[in-house]
Amino acid sequence: MAKSFMNEDFLLENESARVIFAAAKEMPIFDWHCHLSPKEICENNQPADIAELWLGGDHYKWRAMRSCGVNEKFITGDAPGKEKFAAFAACMPYLIGNPMYHWCHLELRRYFGIDEILSESTASYIWEKANAAIAQGGFTPKELIEKSNVACLCTTDDPADSLEYHEAIRESGFSCKVLPAFRPDKALSIDAPSFLPWLAQMEKAYGDRITSFAGLCRALENSLERFEANGCRASDHAFSYVPCAEATVSELESIFFEARSGEKITPLQADKYKTALLRFLAEEYASRGWGMELHIGPIRNNSTRIFESVGPDAGCDSIDDNMIAAKLSAFLDSLDREGSLPRTILFTLNPKDNYVLGSMIGNFQTDEAESKIQFGSAWWFNDNIDGMREQMKTLANLGAFGKFIGMVTDSRSFLSYPRHEYFRRIMANFMGELADKGLYPDDRETLCSIARDISYNNAIKYFGIK
Amino acid sequence: MAKSFMNEDFLLENESARVIFAAAKEMPIFDWHCHLSPKEICENNQPADIAELWLGGDHYKWRAMRSCGVNEKFITGDAPGKEKFAAFAACMPYLIGNPMYHWCHLELRRYFGIDEILSESTASYIWEKANAAIAQGGFTPKELIEKSNVACLCTTDDPADSLEYHEAIRESGFSCKVLPAFRPDKALSIDAPSFLPWLAQMEKAYGDRITSFAGLCRALENSLERFEANGCRASDHAFSYVPCAEATVSELESIFFEARSGEKITPLQADKYKTALLRFLAEEYASRGWGMELHIGPIRNNSTRIFESVGPDAGCDSIDDNMIAAKLSAFLDSLDREGSLPRTILFTLNPKDNYVLGSMIGNFQTDEAESKIQFGSAWWFNDNIDGMREQMKTLANLGAFGKFIGMVTDSRSFLSYPRHEYFRRIMANFMGELADKGLYPDDRETLCSIARDISYNNAIKYFGIK
Amino acid sequence: MAKSFMNEDFLLENESARVIFAAAKEMPIFDWHCHLSPKEICENNQPADIAELWLGGDHYKWRAMRSCGVNEKFITGDAPGKEKFAAFAACMPYLIGNPMYHWCHLELRRYFGIDEILSESTASYIWEKANAAIAQGGFTPKELIEKSNVACLCTTDDPADSLEYHEAIRESGFSCKVLPAFRPDKALSIDAPSFLPWLAQMEKAYGDRITSFAGLCRALENSLERFEANGCRASDHAFSYVPCAEATVSELESIFFEARSGEKITPLQADKYKTALLRFLAEEYASRGWGMELHIGPIRNNSTRIFESVGPDAGCDSIDDNMIAAKLSAFLDSLDREGSLPRTILFTLNPKDNYVLGSMIGNFQTDEAESKIQFGSAWWFNDNIDGMREQMKTLANLGAFGKFIGMVTDSRSFLSYPRHEYFRRIMANFMGELADKGLYPDDRETLCSIARDISYNNAIKYFGIK
Repeated sequence: MAKSFMNEDFLLENESARVIFAAAKEMPIFDWHCHLSPKEICENNQPADIAELWLGGDHYKWRAMRSCGVNEKFITGDAPGKEKFAAFAACMPYLIGNPMYHWCHLELRRYFGIDEILSESTASYIWEKANAAIAQGGFTPKELIEKSNVACLCTTDDPADSLEYHEAIRESGFSCKVLPAFRPDKALSIDAPSFLPWLAQMEKAYGDRITSFAGLCRALENSLERFEANGCRASDHAFSYVPCAEATVSELESIFFEARSGEKITPLQADKYKTALLRFLAEEYASRGWGMELHIGPIRNNSTRIFESVGPDAGCDSIDDNMIAAKLSAFLDSLDREGSLPRTILFTLNPKDNYVLGSMIGNFQTDEAESKIQFGSAWWFNDNIDGMREQMKTLANLGAFGKFIGMVTDSRSFLSYPRHEYFRRIMANFMGELADKGLYPDDRETLCSIARDISYNNAIKYFGIK
Repeated sequence: MAKSFMNEDFLLENESARVIFAAAKEMPIFDWHCHLSPKEICENNQPADIAELWLGGDHYKWRAMRSCGVNEKFITGDAPGKEKFAAFAACMPYLIGNPMYHWCHLELRRYFGIDEILSESTASYIWEKANAAIAQGGFTPKELIEKSNVACLCTTDDPADSLEYHEAIRESGFSCKVLPAFRPDKALSIDAPSFLPWLAQMEKAYGDRITSFAGLCRALENSLERFEANGCRASDHAFSYVPCAEATVSELESIFFEARSGEKITPLQADKYKTALLRFLAEEYASRGWGMELHIGPIRNNSTRIFESVGPDAGCDSIDDNMIAAKLSAFLDSLDREGSLPRTILFTLNPKDNYVLGSMIGNFQTDEAESKIQFGSAWWFNDNIDGMREQMKTLANLGAFGKFIGMVTDSRSFLSYPRHEYFRRIMANFMGELADKGLYPDDRETLCSIARDISYNNAIKYFGIK
Repeated sequence: MAKSFMNEDFLLENESARVIFAAAKEMPIFDWHCHLSPKEICENNQPADIAELWLGGDHYKWRAMRSCGVNEKFITGDAPGKEKFAAFAACMPYLIGNPMYHWCHLELRRYFGIDEILSESTASYIWEKANAAIAQGGFTPKELIEKSNVACLCTTDDPADSLEYHEAIRESGFSCKVLPAFRPDKALSIDAPSFLPWLAQMEKAYGDRITSFAGLCRALENSLERFEANGCRASDHAFSYVPCAEATVSELESIFFEARSGEKITPLQADKYKTALLRFLAEEYASRGWGMELHIGPIRNNSTRIFESVGPDAGCDSIDDNMIAAKLSAFLDSLDREGSLPRTILFTLNPKDNYVLGSMIGNFQTDEAESKIQFGSAWWFNDNIDGMREQMKTLANLGAFGKFIGMVTDSRSFLSYPRHEYFRRIMANFMGELADKGLYPDDRETLCSIARDISYNNAIKYFGIK
């Protein structure tokens, strides 16, 4: 007989897996990379309805709706929330096999107490029931975070950010640590239209003009101090590929000068600049004991039409396919041999590079940390059952799975914590299957201990959270 | 106990899968991309024997035989049919795990009523039995197509083709719609030796000289009209990678002029020409509501020895490994932002690009069609159980599986329709497994409805077949 | 109930698999590619303890220890063997899902009669028990090789090697054939610092100066003769990608002259030189009926720090990601069309290229051998359950699995033969699963015969071992 949909044994296929998950489930959440808005946490407003919560900014859902042929009016347009929700609900049955199908039903169950299957025919009933639940309260950002047993989370913040909301949250006595993470993508993107506007912002934050590469480094150092003072333990970077192009100091200064003058920067110039700046930053991270996250592989804003009408992060990003190994290796080695390679987490968007990264991390491990160089959990388009299993199998085959720092939501939604449950179930089943098949001793104590580590303890230790 | 070989539950591993397959099985076939010869359909000749049917032109079988060390004489050479058949039969046991093993036995069962296992020891018996069946009739192209419940099929035709056979088939009152598909590969391959001979053919078909890029566009438009008049709904293109290189009108004209004068075209010139011509064609397809198939990734005719002795499509093609994402994205976006991106189906020969294409399609979806941009079914070397499952899992994880337009044989053989059965079994099992494991509700009505859509309805709707 | 850890049905999931493995298990081993030291075989010394056997030179274990945060002192440093062993044992539980976990326990069981699970708490007990076993004898290289039922093995030898140890082993009447394999990587690496020192060694071995490309070819031919006289049947090459760049004779001579003069060689020059030299060698291999192994895809010595302190092969290699298809195809074709393509075995380190190689081999098959061009077994980082299954599925889907020449240890350790058992179990289960699911007839005789072929017979025949 078919297992009932998403029952208590969801994703758990044997007794060992069930026992392991029971252990993992009890652990708090440390969501060390997400895109939640500290301002929204701080303001802690009650949402209007489930359309706002689900469809207000979730590019995964927008993308799913566009795939089903829904008109943009019901996606990012001006249709009423109820109609948008109905349009989304009608898509659901066609999302068979999509993680969205599970995420939505997990959210309905865990936060709204709704067990029904979402589809065209239940849309109206669920719309009412969900909104009634919201009306009863408990759906503000802080309430959702607390309800989800989140002990600590790291947002993603620009070096120019004042971090005033982080301070305010801290001072409010909120039970969950809300730490900033340092994301200087705009500082690195010297060849993007965003560079000069960002530089202006940064000058304002710094309180001085930034007229040279050296000056930029000083300004960023100033930001790093501010982030450190606010408890920052992680930085984050995104690249199509990690560059490694050497340049002299005077070259760097002239590249910076050209960019500042509004001249066009060549790809090679950009790579030189990025290499030098990332190296400067990496040394800083290393000296502070921070983790450096490298997210490799997206192409963004592929649809000019949607970018111009809706903006970035609108569900029109996809997966790039550059050659990444040689440059990444050279870059990491250049830091490693100077003793200034920070704890580093390598994420790939393109699963073709799972084995490249899974083997790359082994080159630079030292006793500074257990798996100092990490292969990050299945990211974005890979954040599904198959992708997570692949990442886990890759890491287990090539490295020390027991030292893995585990899951992050990478999310913009306060409802996305069940993705940790999803991850933990998949992880428990992965380990349980090894035990069940006689590929690892069915020693439940060891298995549960590793599961607890991967769910929480390893990341807390890795990032040095107190 | 082991399941008996290819029994009625072949590839179906649970009750949900069996129910879903039962629904899918009843649907007619719409084979919207194949390489059948309209001339052969029109002439409708009885084949001589199973050697002609199986070994006369099937590069898959030739390749398998070469892999087993068979001498070319028994493959494409002048050995008698019976000896070729015996040589092939002797290879069969070693093809364990190869889709050819299943295809052959499916064909023996479905068309010849032969249940025996093909091997050296049964070769002679099966040779007699199969040929006796052929002698009894029912093996002409039209009979095989009708027996296979094919409602509609699209051949693959050059713009210079007169389409006289399509007309004749239509007029003959054949129950299956046999539509042309527009395949202008030779028009695009300006850097290939075939270009000038093709141009001469095209001039003949067009009835005028073609002396400029603009003139070529006019001639192709003329072909497009002829194809449209013959019911064409699809075009088809093959690339190592989809180019995207901008050029001015005068550049295009001078590239065309050089090629026409027999001068050597550089790779960059070729890319510029191809980009412009494909863009022109894509706009035409969009305005006609046709689908544009892009087949990405083969390297052809790798063995000069076989190419010179046997010709193209002789089993010496394989998989290329270019970087394809950035150019493909730029090309599709250039059409999308002008509102002239047609319905597009992206196929990859290299499975490393499954996730690249699976995520690329999501960038350009609109409400013009349900999954206007499609990730095509597992193609050629991927057309096996693992490859089909991977394509399905990729599509399900990244898009709306329920809107998938499904299977095509891509075949040159009139016996290849059981590959639709193969696909439907794999699809049914894929969906059945989700239901069985509690990853999707075991709602048989919805599951069967989606299976019917993917088997037939979605493609009919997508291509606008009446 | 969970299957007990690594019991007699380890990796075997159904009755067909068990029967197939029973047949495979009886076959001797032909380890046609390994890195054992002929000197060590010849000298046949008793090891001191399990630390020497396990941690003396095994970069897999070093890498695993570094991943767990162990200090280099306990890895390649001067800590006592017992402490190193304890440090390794403490890492074991975290290597869940890693082939190392299985290899270690297989070795403990098969050679030491130790069934306990290795971990921090059993480290001391196992240390004593293993060393007691060693003290009782039976652990010299020759004893381990004989105990492992190895009929023939091929080492990996430089063209400058005298092969004196091979001769001595042969003359000692050792039951296992120990053949040299020709590995001219240093001859090909004209752009590496090792080139001139190697040239000096080669001149010494050759007994004459080597002052030209033509002279180098003569010297290598001289080596080929010496290898042939010592029973060599295989050559071996490693590349990031196989080059294919044409050059004139005078270009080659001037590249050689520049290199010999200590000038810097450009990447294009190196590719031209490598292409020409590899082509020369390939023709030689073809005329001798040798197999040519091409190992594609590593980046070596990624960590300058470890390379400078420990040396090469220290566990700091990883996977490269070049585009390999077009050049490899052109190179193989250039030999094939001259009739001088040797038996060739293509290995990939990057699993993204499984389908590229799996389809590439089909382009150049002839009747000179059954699967004359082979897709080599899962190599190095892929040498795990998932990687081996992927290689097998790829080969089965794209070629003739029954003609596969199977497993090699690629190892530096005399204890690594259980990896053949590991492979045979995975192969038996792969075939058994096909039979069990009705995807291949459950004809045990045929299945066992194919399993015996892949385990041993195919390779013996392929390399022409008497």
